[in-house]
Amino acid sequence: MQILKDKIIRCGKPIADRIIKVDSFLNHQLDVDLLNEIGKEFKQRFQDKTITKILTLESSGIAIACITAQYFHVPVVFAKKHEAANLDADNYQAEVYSYTKDRLYQIRVAKDYLLRQDKVLIIDDFLANGQAINGLLELISQAGAEAVGIGIVIEKAFQKGREKISNQRIQLESLAIIESIRDGEIIFQ
Amino acid sequence: MQILKDKIIRCGKPIADRIIKVDSFLNHQLDVDLLNEIGKEFKQRFQDKTITKILTLESSGIAIACITAQYFHVPVVFAKKHEAANLDADNYQAEVYSYTKDRLYQIRVAKDYLLRQDKVLIIDDFLANGQAINGLLELISQAGAEAVGIGIVIEKAFQKGREKISNQRIQLESLAIIESIRDGEIIFQ
Repeated sequence: MQILKDKIIRCGKPIADRIIKVDSFLNHQLDVDLLNEIGKEFKQRFQDKTITKILTLESSGIAIACITAQYFHVPVVFAKKHEAANLDADNYQAEVYSYTKDRLYQIRVAKDYLLRQDKVLIIDDFLANGQAINGLLELISQAGAEAVGIGIVIEKAFQKGREKISNQRIQLESLAIIESIRDGEIIFQ
Repeated sequence: MQILKDKIIRCGKPIADRIIKVDSFLNHQLDVDLLNEIGKEFKQRFQDKTITKILTLESSGIAIACITAQYFHVPVVFAKKHEAANLDADNYQAEVYSYTKDRLYQIRVAKDYLLRQDKVLIIDDFLANGQAINGLLELISQAGAEAVGIGIVIEKAFQKGREKISNQRIQLESLAIIESIRDGEIIFQ
């Protein structure tokens, strides 16, 4: 997706050779016009799929998932990863390891919002090591629902998340795939 | 806003006499069509204001702020309240007390995303004791920017947040104002 790649080149900040900061438009300040283009692109890529729900993870997936959901006319559910005073006790849980923070955390969705009959599109901002996506797939599996697609804004191909996703039969679409970051230069696949 | 009140009556779950759970449509599962109606209503209520940015707080404000931002054609910035590995060291910080969790936490915005010339509309899901809104006002004040409006989806009038907001000159609009919750019945103002 060219306008996304252009934006990453223009506004992304490479940090060392593994991290790219996109908080000027994707996960702290949010460029809502760009999110709309991203939403349209996901709709186009998953247009032949029946989708009843979009599942994402707080906090940085929420904006992308919501804007995208407007093109699918389905509700969004975001898995919680922080303690939430009001979360139902009755929920699905999965364990996710964060490389960035070097710790395990729980992600949770109340059972009421992920149903056996749901056909779920997973949306997230990054695919790095695939931990978060595998956690979301685990929640869907616990619910007996079906994961029908995974839509990623930025994939870091050098971190092998794609290979590590447990269910390889699911359509996975990344809108910008970064092959490597070398000397502060971002190289797309 | 009648369709919002109808939704709260139909899908909100009163818990004791102070809490109303709206996680089936507002802060866990998200009804994106309803969020669009909310966005349109905020646009209408703040139509005579010049607004350059929408500021909210993770996680539950993000969806509402993003959908609303489409009607104002401005970026969203969400203040972070959880530790974030990648947040700039150079940020504005304020302290917020959470009654629900009975603890203090820091909210932060990177200085790059809140500018002296910004005219800011604050958007949040709830107004209860006004702590979060006062924290956001403090961030805006630190940036030397101007808060031009506060848009709230659900105000709990019995928790006096409105009176406790430090800057009383700012236009405050709540789309549904709950007067009280008695015996499981929600009474609007």
